[in-house]
Amino acid sequence: MAVQHDASLMEKIVSLCKRRGFIFPSSEIYGGLNGVWDYGPLGAELKRNLKDHWWRSMTQLRDDVVGMDGAILMNRAVWKASGHEKTFSDPLVDCKTCKGRFREDQLDTSQCKMKPSKTPRTCGGELSPPRQFNLMLKTTIGAMEDDSNATYLRPETAQAIFVQFKSVLEVARKKIPFGIAQIGKAFRNEINPRNYTFRSREFEQMELEFFVKPGTGQEWLEYWKEERIKWYTEIGIPREKIHVHEVPDKDRAFYSQGTYDLEYAFPFGVQELEGVAYRTDYDLKQHQEHSGKSLEYFDEETKQKYIPHVVEPSAGVDRTVLALLCEAYREEEVPDEKGKQETRIVMRFSPRIAPVKVGVFPLLKNKPELVKKTGEVANLLRPHMAIFYDESGAIGRRYRRQDEVGTPFGVTIDFETLEGPQKETVTLRHRDSMKQERIPIAGLVTRLSAAIR
Amino acid sequence: MAVQHDASLMEKIVSLCKRRGFIFPSSEIYGGLNGVWDYGPLGAELKRNLKDHWWRSMTQLRDDVVGMDGAILMNRAVWKASGHEKTFSDPLVDCKTCKGRFREDQLDTSQCKMKPSKTPRTCGGELSPPRQFNLMLKTTIGAMEDDSNATYLRPETAQAIFVQFKSVLEVARKKIPFGIAQIGKAFRNEINPRNYTFRSREFEQMELEFFVKPGTGQEWLEYWKEERIKWYTEIGIPREKIHVHEVPDKDRAFYSQGTYDLEYAFPFGVQELEGVAYRTDYDLKQHQEHSGKSLEYFDEETKQKYIPHVVEPSAGVDRTVLALLCEAYREEEVPDEKGKQETRIVMRFSPRIAPVKVGVFPLLKNKPELVKKTGEVANLLRPHMAIFYDESGAIGRRYRRQDEVGTPFGVTIDFETLEGPQKETVTLRHRDSMKQERIPIAGLVTRLSAAIR
Repeated sequence: MAVQHDASLMEKIVSLCKRRGFIFPSSEIYGGLNGVWDYGPLGAELKRNLKDHWWRSMTQLRDDVVGMDGAILMNRAVWKASGHEKTFSDPLVDCKTCKGRFREDQLDTSQCKMKPSKTPRTCGGELSPPRQFNLMLKTTIGAMEDDSNATYLRPETAQAIFVQFKSVLEVARKKIPFGIAQIGKAFRNEINPRNYTFRSREFEQMELEFFVKPGTGQEWLEYWKEERIKWYTEIGIPREKIHVHEVPDKDRAFYSQGTYDLEYAFPFGVQELEGVAYRTDYDLKQHQEHSGKSLEYFDEETKQKYIPHVVEPSAGVDRTVLALLCEAYREEEVPDEKGKQETRIVMRFSPRIAPVKVGVFPLLKNKPELVKKTGEVANLLRPHMAIFYDESGAIGRRYRRQDEVGTPFGVTIDFETLEGPQKETVTLRHRDSMKQERIPIAGLVTRLSAAIR
Repeated sequence: MAVQHDASLMEKIVSLCKRRGFIFPSSEIYGGLNGVWDYGPLGAELKRNLKDHWWRSMTQLRDDVVGMDGAILMNRAVWKASGHEKTFSDPLVDCKTCKGRFREDQLDTSQCKMKPSKTPRTCGGELSPPRQFNLMLKTTIGAMEDDSNATYLRPETAQAIFVQFKSVLEVARKKIPFGIAQIGKAFRNEINPRNYTFRSREFEQMELEFFVKPGTGQEWLEYWKEERIKWYTEIGIPREKIHVHEVPDKDRAFYSQGTYDLEYAFPFGVQELEGVAYRTDYDLKQHQEHSGKSLEYFDEETKQKYIPHVVEPSAGVDRTVLALLCEAYREEEVPDEKGKQETRIVMRFSPRIAPVKVGVFPLLKNKPELVKKTGEVANLLRPHMAIFYDESGAIGRRYRRQDEVGTPFGVTIDFETLEGPQKETVTLRHRDSMKQERIPIAGLVTRLSAAIR
């Protein structure tokens, strides 16, 4: 599909993320580390809310999925069996003239190191034949620093699930079809990290491996595609913004018998958020063969033994955070307090995933009775949701500051609040409509708790 | 203090963790990976509950702490500045005879590789002089595999906070004293991982760096020591089980002006759960000097500039999980359904951190009306808490199975439940007392939600 690439929109989002503390370059005071990012206070909360919603949807709300949490470091034999050690690589080309190293498939879009206006193909430098460059980050564990102690940081979380399939099956008291869900970090030595946090060297995945009876993989593939689309709408990405790309035979991994890419129209192009893949019994078979341990399932009803087939919805945490940031960003022309038009930046996060749920404000900071009462309201709300207390500046400016980080509600304590315990009310202000209403303090927790669920 | 080391108790806990799916060795089907562990379905939930409670206590419930989530990979310059590259090491000794490598301080308790009944000191082998062995795991990032692209997996999460101190300060709208909280993985190449998950090569930390005005560090050290002790009691570790060890001058890091170790009596000895350290301004000073970026704070009230001092409560996730498992484990002699004495294993987790909150059971599985009604009750509870549905075996056995994983409540749907909508009641069974009571379905969510908070 045709897309308007919008570089200036992306710049604005990146700038807001830095200015308001969603995302920072890792080790920034030392010049950063290419392709690695830190989440600041608001980014960390946004990411947590996203992951919590996924975990809750996948495990707590379902009877047929259990969670696990595997380590990043695994025995190297895992990566031999999975095929990653041999084939998880990109073809690289060296320029003998400028000493640059480039992905062969990006020679026409990369920059020559000596003549930045040229590409490695057009600069006249002498290029080496391509060689395969493995994308896994290697490390050495134990007292001996030789290759026998080498292993890799996992390039995907899925293998931990396959390798523990039998152990989990034995303890979980589940029958097939059932799934194992996991959230965790993975690492890929991308030669050319790009598009902000979209293609990073350190990233987080939310993966479900759903084990099914042979012959039922295609129907479960359809099921999970639909479930996952629905899930994105629950976190605020509308159905029509999700592009479903059915990956054609020639582009699929050889072991897959069907893959859907769920894509989102980022300002830098339509890109994958999640792959939903029918991986057949490839992974379990490989591990059974290499480990010599049976990974078969015994079906008590049919008395058959088989290696289960797998349908995998695999989502990127960081890319979904980025999609939420892009989807939420709005600039609106609205009147300020004096009726003059001004530009309001507002992050229209779904209340469920917004990092802060409610701003709590005394109308004026130099009135002790207002500040005291505001503290009481803050203490009332704090056990139930993430709040932000702010007393500095005009109330309109405080609203705008919360608009810019996507806080869905504002509660303002004013002189009317103090008029008496029978009618203690506050102003409840709504981020999107900017409408204000008066509601009793006694009803705040119930009202807001329901709205952020 | 004198401690009874209880190897057989530890064995029982390890066995339960494997049998019921709390903890598995990583990559177990390939022989494992020394010092690296995976959390199974119940372990993953227990760990999540623990981390969520820490995060909530540290961030949501406080007005003076914000969170962040930094990457595991950082620019190597961070580890030069922090001193880790030079000094984060253990002295190792090689045996030229058996080719073993040992920690110098463990020569008397290690085993010779050729004569396992002897130590490296007594086997007659020729020992090399000790040399320093850095405990950070090294890796290489980028297209060139040379040392200029090397960096380390972080050995502690704290440095990410120090390095981003200024960025967070600018966005968080907080005044000193204030803190930055973080949960994340860290890695140390322990030569001799031991005591189950206690000393692992891959582990998770929950760290708060609390920034204070110079001259106030000692009082904040006392404050955080007390806060942290209180926090452990909230998750079910009684005050009297926490040993506070004031680390003497000679054992403290040179930059620390006071450290308390909060320790727990594990079956393998009294060991540290958390260190609460007054780190002075050492870390920020180092990073200011090495990065050339000012990490000073401007105090608006006194118009002074200073480098803040830091008090750090640093807790281990995996060790706290292990303490919770050890603390919860009980064997009790109780009568079975026929009045015969039997041994009941029960994990007395605090309901707040228990992996499953309530077991939901039809009294009999071959009565469709019971099974149907049980499904309705399960659907009623599921959005509010982690439940486990079980229909197989005698009800007494199902209770025991949930006792063994620490599920605090059981709800059983029986024929009385079906007697009519006006008096729809279920049996609520309490794990610790094993008492049962009848309560109306309509009151279940409120009652249980309050009990697990």
